[in-house]
Amino acid sequence: VRIVVLCGGVGAARFLDGVVRTVADPSAVTALCNVSDDLSWHGLHVSPDIDTVIYTLAGLEGEFGWGLEGDTHTALSELSILGGDEWFTIGDRDLATHILRNEVLERGGTISEATTAIATARGISCRLLPVTNDLHPTIVRTAEGELAFQEYFVRHRSADIVTGFRFPGAETAHPAPGVVESIREAELILFAPSNPFVSIEPLLSVPGVRTAIATSIVPRVAVSPIVGGEAVKGPAAEMLRSLGHEVSALGIARLYRGLIDTLVIDFADAKLAPYIENLGIQTLVLDSMMRDRDGRTRLASEVLQAVAP
Amino acid sequence: VRIVVLCGGVGAARFLDGVVRTVADPSAVTALCNVSDDLSWHGLHVSPDIDTVIYTLAGLEGEFGWGLEGDTHTALSELSILGGDEWFTIGDRDLATHILRNEVLERGGTISEATTAIATARGISCRLLPVTNDLHPTIVRTAEGELAFQEYFVRHRSADIVTGFRFPGAETAHPAPGVVESIREAELILFAPSNPFVSIEPLLSVPGVRTAIATSIVPRVAVSPIVGGEAVKGPAAEMLRSLGHEVSALGIARLYRGLIDTLVIDFADAKLAPYIENLGIQTLVLDSMMRDRDGRTRLASEVLQAVAP
Repeated sequence: VRIVVLCGGVGAARFLDGVVRTVADPSAVTALCNVSDDLSWHGLHVSPDIDTVIYTLAGLEGEFGWGLEGDTHTALSELSILGGDEWFTIGDRDLATHILRNEVLERGGTISEATTAIATARGISCRLLPVTNDLHPTIVRTAEGELAFQEYFVRHRSADIVTGFRFPGAETAHPAPGVVESIREAELILFAPSNPFVSIEPLLSVPGVRTAIATSIVPRVAVSPIVGGEAVKGPAAEMLRSLGHEVSALGIARLYRGLIDTLVIDFADAKLAPYIENLGIQTLVLDSMMRDRDGRTRLASEVLQAVAP
Repeated sequence: VRIVVLCGGVGAARFLDGVVRTVADPSAVTALCNVSDDLSWHGLHVSPDIDTVIYTLAGLEGEFGWGLEGDTHTALSELSILGGDEWFTIGDRDLATHILRNEVLERGGTISEATTAIATARGISCRLLPVTNDLHPTIVRTAEGELAFQEYFVRHRSADIVTGFRFPGAETAHPAPGVVESIREAELILFAPSNPFVSIEPLLSVPGVRTAIATSIVPRVAVSPIVGGEAVKGPAAEMLRSLGHEVSALGIARLYRGLIDTLVIDFADAKLAPYIENLGIQTLVLDSMMRDRDGRTRLASEVLQAVAP
């Protein structure tokens, strides 16, 4: 079964890991990865979501889901000594990833090529595609002004009240090679449990992607990132609230209306099922929390068993 | 006294350190630094000679004269895991230097600007100028073909028989800002004990530099890198031999004829003094070996006392 998974960061990486461990042929799984929270770190291109996906699939992810487990921070400390303002943490092993990506980009390669090089070196068995190779940043609007995504997310620890988003590169961004084709050829489209505003929307906003999904006739299934009125991880709940949406799986269903056929919701949200189904979206009610590595494969296999064609 | 020091790597860094520790006003010392052994390391610009000078002046240099003392190699090991062929050793603390340089270059800055940023962050009190901000690599000709300098020096451990050199960027290279001016305004020009072929010649071959030194009327003093028929460090002796020069301070004197007034030679080479003076070059005979940190200031102060105007 050819599967496309729309991916943000930590939650997506864990769900994708479950999918890859569940399916018979991981090479038939294509992850479309968000690059709108990429940043230039001292001139090195860093793709946090792609790296989280790769480290997680390789079983190397750090305690909080990002970075490499047990990494050291010698280079970072030295940069601080040299006067850098090191609010974005990059470990020494992690640096190798960014150095390798830099090498590919310096010789004229694309983020796609860099991603393939890094994923291949890590023995990743599924296909990872950045949604675009063009600059396509997420700008977060707050009461105090606009922030680059990582300024908002890491430097400010998601503390600002979000009033909106801007994707200045969206109109001119081209989907990376294989992105639209993979959606057209998919037999199943999964929305990983990711932030709808800063993980999924940047994917959809690349020209051709939203239309390809909206017009697809294969099963399209999202896993709600909101469980029991709270985000499993990250600032999704605060964003829903400040932007005037209901902070629930129903709020997620409204955002994805027209793009999905089924929403996976947790037992905790079973009471929302009729309201979601009233929007023309089926529900799949199960234990959607991935508490550990086994939880990932359990969730993925339950979803696939229920919805795979 | 305004002093210019022509610098290569380890020997030069140690001598310059002695000069800086000896003079009353280190800011009046300008080091012209070789950049012809610079390399692109996974897309990061590395300037080994400049880094050696900075680390040595900061008192941080590694056991063998290059890199940082007690550095770790976590990122390098990870790059090996990712499939890199890591023959050029870069430590984790060392990486901070190359990342900072990369940042300056990525935003359109020059090697000069990157050097100043790094030197300032390390508290270096003298002035460090790369001889050029243009690409000006040393190509080493060997019986088996041409090698980039670091391929010859590090990867092949200087094992090839050298038949010549090529500086393909020399004709089009521009001296970096301040280089020719510093020579013209100098009251004393010192040639550090560096390799004449791959440290000093690349400096001289930048248009304007050789002429500025050849026509200078201030004292011009070189410290012989050959002592007792051997190079204090590096492949200078093998190069002199294979290129048909005498492997001695006299061989060095012949190479620098027309550019220097005085050659500093070791007591071990006192017998060569008449032959060197016969070339129109005065000799200053002393203990030229820098065995430790004190040895650097001893040599520098003896030289300055003898030749400073």
